[in-house]
Amino acid sequence: MSGNTFGKSFCVTSFGESHGPAIGCVVDGCPPGLAISEADIQRDLDRRKPGQSKYVTQRKEPDEVRILSGVHDGVTTGTPIALVIENTDQRSRDYAKIEDVFRPNHADYAYMQKYGRRDHRGGGRSSARETAVRVAAGALARKFLSERFGIEVRGCLSRIGPYSFEARDWSAVNQNPFFCPQPEQVPELENYINKIRKLGDSIGAEIYVEAVGVPAGWGEPVFDRLDADLAHALMSINAVKAVAIGDGFDVVNQLGSQHRDEMSPQGFLSNHSGGVAGGISTGQSVTARMALKPTSSIIVPGQTINAQGESAQVRTTGRHDPCVGIRATPIAEAMLALVLIDHCLRNRAQNADVSPTPGPIPGQL
Amino acid sequence: MSGNTFGKSFCVTSFGESHGPAIGCVVDGCPPGLAISEADIQRDLDRRKPGQSKYVTQRKEPDEVRILSGVHDGVTTGTPIALVIENTDQRSRDYAKIEDVFRPNHADYAYMQKYGRRDHRGGGRSSARETAVRVAAGALARKFLSERFGIEVRGCLSRIGPYSFEARDWSAVNQNPFFCPQPEQVPELENYINKIRKLGDSIGAEIYVEAVGVPAGWGEPVFDRLDADLAHALMSINAVKAVAIGDGFDVVNQLGSQHRDEMSPQGFLSNHSGGVAGGISTGQSVTARMALKPTSSIIVPGQTINAQGESAQVRTTGRHDPCVGIRATPIAEAMLALVLIDHCLRNRAQNADVSPTPGPIPGQL
Amino acid sequence: MSGNTFGKSFCVTSFGESHGPAIGCVVDGCPPGLAISEADIQRDLDRRKPGQSKYVTQRKEPDEVRILSGVHDGVTTGTPIALVIENTDQRSRDYAKIEDVFRPNHADYAYMQKYGRRDHRGGGRSSARETAVRVAAGALARKFLSERFGIEVRGCLSRIGPYSFEARDWSAVNQNPFFCPQPEQVPELENYINKIRKLGDSIGAEIYVEAVGVPAGWGEPVFDRLDADLAHALMSINAVKAVAIGDGFDVVNQLGSQHRDEMSPQGFLSNHSGGVAGGISTGQSVTARMALKPTSSIIVPGQTINAQGESAQVRTTGRHDPCVGIRATPIAEAMLALVLIDHCLRNRAQNADVSPTPGPIPGQL
Amino acid sequence: MSGNTFGKSFCVTSFGESHGPAIGCVVDGCPPGLAISEADIQRDLDRRKPGQSKYVTQRKEPDEVRILSGVHDGVTTGTPIALVIENTDQRSRDYAKIEDVFRPNHADYAYMQKYGRRDHRGGGRSSARETAVRVAAGALARKFLSERFGIEVRGCLSRIGPYSFEARDWSAVNQNPFFCPQPEQVPELENYINKIRKLGDSIGAEIYVEAVGVPAGWGEPVFDRLDADLAHALMSINAVKAVAIGDGFDVVNQLGSQHRDEMSPQGFLSNHSGGVAGGISTGQSVTARMALKPTSSIIVPGQTINAQGESAQVRTTGRHDPCVGIRATPIAEAMLALVLIDHCLRNRAQNADVSPTPGPIPGQL
Repeated sequence: MSGNTFGKSFCVTSFGESHGPAIGCVVDGCPPGLAISEADIQRDLDRRKPGQSKYVTQRKEPDEVRILSGVHDGVTTGTPIALVIENTDQRSRDYAKIEDVFRPNHADYAYMQKYGRRDHRGGGRSSARETAVRVAAGALARKFLSERFGIEVRGCLSRIGPYSFEARDWSAVNQNPFFCPQPEQVPELENYINKIRKLGDSIGAEIYVEAVGVPAGWGEPVFDRLDADLAHALMSINAVKAVAIGDGFDVVNQLGSQHRDEMSPQGFLSNHSGGVAGGISTGQSVTARMALKPTSSIIVPGQTINAQGESAQVRTTGRHDPCVGIRATPIAEAMLALVLIDHCLRNRAQNADVSPTPGPIPGQL
Repeated sequence: MSGNTFGKSFCVTSFGESHGPAIGCVVDGCPPGLAISEADIQRDLDRRKPGQSKYVTQRKEPDEVRILSGVHDGVTTGTPIALVIENTDQRSRDYAKIEDVFRPNHADYAYMQKYGRRDHRGGGRSSARETAVRVAAGALARKFLSERFGIEVRGCLSRIGPYSFEARDWSAVNQNPFFCPQPEQVPELENYINKIRKLGDSIGAEIYVEAVGVPAGWGEPVFDRLDADLAHALMSINAVKAVAIGDGFDVVNQLGSQHRDEMSPQGFLSNHSGGVAGGISTGQSVTARMALKPTSSIIVPGQTINAQGESAQVRTTGRHDPCVGIRATPIAEAMLALVLIDHCLRNRAQNADVSPTPGPIPGQL
Repeated sequence: MSGNTFGKSFCVTSFGESHGPAIGCVVDGCPPGLAISEADIQRDLDRRKPGQSKYVTQRKEPDEVRILSGVHDGVTTGTPIALVIENTDQRSRDYAKIEDVFRPNHADYAYMQKYGRRDHRGGGRSSARETAVRVAAGALARKFLSERFGIEVRGCLSRIGPYSFEARDWSAVNQNPFFCPQPEQVPELENYINKIRKLGDSIGAEIYVEAVGVPAGWGEPVFDRLDADLAHALMSINAVKAVAIGDGFDVVNQLGSQHRDEMSPQGFLSNHSGGVAGGISTGQSVTARMALKPTSSIIVPGQTINAQGESAQVRTTGRHDPCVGIRATPIAEAMLALVLIDHCLRNRAQNADVSPTPGPIPGQL
Repeated sequence: MSGNTFGKSFCVTSFGESHGPAIGCVVDGCPPGLAISEADIQRDLDRRKPGQSKYVTQRKEPDEVRILSGVHDGVTTGTPIALVIENTDQRSRDYAKIEDVFRPNHADYAYMQKYGRRDHRGGGRSSARETAVRVAAGALARKFLSERFGIEVRGCLSRIGPYSFEARDWSAVNQNPFFCPQPEQVPELENYINKIRKLGDSIGAEIYVEAVGVPAGWGEPVFDRLDADLAHALMSINAVKAVAIGDGFDVVNQLGSQHRDEMSPQGFLSNHSGGVAGGISTGQSVTARMALKPTSSIIVPGQTINAQGESAQVRTTGRHDPCVGIRATPIAEAMLALVLIDHCLRNRAQNADVSPTPGPIPGQL
């Protein structure tokens, strides 16, 4: 019943607060024999790290991961893998002045109602800092999926405020601080974010993720469908308010004859479904989008209440992201990878004996 | 690891195929002392039942539910409640001709890849018939939520093809076969659906659901957030391709100062968040939308492959819905109710001792 | 968190009361492709059935199982398998007189404290009748284990009152109503049980079970060890008060040099460990024992309290077993089979890629 | 499906190898508002710590626990609590010589078969060192149970080799290195253990544990009975081969009229059942016993095989306990506490509304 464990077969149990001694997780169920080092994980963590550009929070965290267990001679042993990242750059004093008031749309009011108390420093458990742990665990999943199945998991910024981008140039995505797949748009994006920041405000964003090379047969209907678990995974990321698989909300105005992905001996002829049918992967690319709300920690003053239920005003002046979506691409990728590895393992529990049947493998869309 | 159990505390385990002897479920974890009868459940089932108007599949199923356990003298005892609905009107011969080919975007190809075999009759386990079971289990949840907390769960059709509707007239919703909240639009809708059916095609739809009166404090971050579990629940419904909480994808182009729901001693001043912050209910109404794709069982011929991997053509001529979204409103309500009761129980496992703190109860939005 | 689901990968969700309409279960996670019929399950159910000899309860239940789902053309499809057994011979009036008093050591007092109410008819959910469902689910597990791995699961009565038996003659076990492996002792046993029944009293018993042919590598330390899950499984059977693996409590006075099972290229030289080391199967036979208390439903009057907390006397005059252990052998076998199949599937989720290493296969003890 | 998580509501996820950088756990589901410090946990850890007397392994570990999350201002916040203990005194070279051979009855052969590899240093994950983590998590559980319900959890050595002890003098238990409740026997015990050690051999033991003050109503039949989960918990401790609740195996030769615990308005008149009926606590003391086998790491040479499957001889010369049972009392107490808190929370998920009914509270046995 634990709410801090993700997955049923590849299980990630997360812990840690923004301003406590450390954050981390335990990964239970990782297959043995996977070569993994702290450097492998660090590479992904560094992509998400705060303080890397002026467009994100200026908190500087080295985010150095330490493997405490489950790896011997550089290889996973099949036992639980504990990953720990110490917190270092905590400016808790920034939060002293907001200790008594609830920030509108921030988690602190809900936490207080639920637990009767809260760790107000930096959002405590509800801080986006927690997502570093997902990226670390996701690094294990990605390496397994890549090595055993040749699966590539990747993502990019697809929308921000009024701008939208197509996943056109994958090589550019990691070359700019926004994970923007249209590099020619980056200067305008920089101007836009600077403008939002000067207003003391924030803006929403949309992230696109896909996994190429997923075999057919992963997903556990009727409840734990691959797409349902992916919706759960992406919606569990801080600030996410919507999730779409394949064509998403566009299906509302599609005809059946337009939407269905026809098949030929040469493969699928389209991919409106996002690679999932009946909750099970089809062999097409798994594709999804998620929307992130503008952060609620902004300088523009807002009306709120204090811990006594009285009217109050709030302005948040700590180090915050003008757009939490900017750093969300590696997190979305990590969650997609975690869903896939979990379903890979779950599928083989029941169906390890099943032989593949003939189907559209060549040129899958 | 079971994929057919929903919930961690109020657990619904579903079974049954479209053309097998029966469908049903076992509900484990229902609190004792809830007055419940077969008639209470039947009321909800009848709202979803096929064959009620000419706009849905003409399969006629009485959908009579039988309670096999867990209720004594009309009251739940705290032991598992088994609900069974016998299948009666099965025309399996309709499916003989499609036994050998895969319908594009239908689950049968994925099932075959996963399990190495499939029950081709009426979609077997992947049939929308399975959702009757969710409605039955949801009826228990709704009654508990209503009696103990005064929570009302309700939904309506919000979009279909090019049409969109506002949740303006709740009293009208159950008076038309589309669950349309703008009754003056029903005649035009009838024309539209007739047109789609004559084309031998199908169309997508969007459903809106809300729960009014949900207390603050339900939801288990960081993974089992209330919104993440709701996304999982709605995306697990047949044909759903996207889920939005509160303002959903609109947040991409909202400023933080627009999006945040300011608070006053008189309550929240808006509800962009859909009643969830940090994954925990805030006391506002919980609101969500989901998009359903057009059904893949259509008469318009399509290109596909057969079980031998060879090129083939398919036309589906059984009794099918021109828009599966038309009957989806009671299913979405049921899933919302199941998520809420599960989180109600999970929250009190850990936090039964927590007393509510002062906050915006009056006039919650 | 459901207490009525057994297993994490091969999941059995049980329902039903002694005097309700039916008992049954849903099995989720059974691999597809297993040939199974109602007759296959009936064979095991008939071994446990009440009313078969004068040494057990005279309740006559045909115990006819019906498969409602998950099997198509005589073969499992990979979807949930629902099994239902209707109750027929219910004499609820027998229980009217004990409605108001608590039987000492019976579950009714505890149920009342927990749920605030109880179904007093025949013990309701706490009746041993519930174990028929375990036997039915176990039949699926046994067939899978036998066909895929050649595993044989078997058991016998090992002790009853002052008598003890050795598992000497397996062919005799199913030829007498006590599952006694020393057929020459049966007449004396009959006399003994008759004596106990004439006294209006009851007696305890011990059951031995073993599984021959279990591969090395099943079990999930550190908590879900194979032996720990087996202890859970056996202790979850009505009336069981103790469980032993291998030499059990005898290890208290064994030296390490006596207890350890030495190994040779020709196999293990002994089996004190009961086939489990570090929580993982070793390839030896898995062996266990369990003790069942004397039933608390006896005619000898006893001191108790009534529902108002006042002093009262109780005599139970319904149809009861003088020794619940007599019919417990098939139940213990079923639970052992359920533990094994669950761990088989769990192991291959994580370790499907692991190749066996050289080890003592020939002549395993 | 994770095998390293214990509990469904108060969830303990354990990690760490004997000779890796650290061991630890994450506790998810601990109610907020519990005052807890590292010193509170250290007190229990110190009771289990190695190297404290010459009767146990001479490995010297300070076993200093560090709380990484979930506690703010000395009080639990309701978020996951990570506990970490660094390993310091690792003499891995002791193990170099046994790298290649399998110790009979030790976990290393089974680990190798399961995972295809093993961390041979000090038993890796299968080392008794892992149990320190259980004691740390158990300390949280004990504090909660004591403060909220007045429950006292305690245990002692009840048998070792040919000696047996009665739980006569609880005040003496923590005053001797054996947790022996009959202090006058300690000198003879010392002689006995010295003799075993001089033989280079080891011996088994039995531990008794009880919880006084457990309310009626905890336990989730039919599978997750309180006694079944306790059997699972105790059997999951290294070296445990048998578990008994209440009278345990003695019930085999008890009459129903002897065994049943009669009730009066003044309370129960006996406690043969060990405080559990129908899988639910009755309000009596919960009592259990467990048997630990003699450790397999001994100096007496034994016949075995090596990694190539060839015949070999083994002698283990590292620092080992002559009787692992000597230090097992705090571990058994911890597991009992973890089972109780988990069932406390699970019970209130479903039954928080149930009011206690009249029953034998005064002078419960």
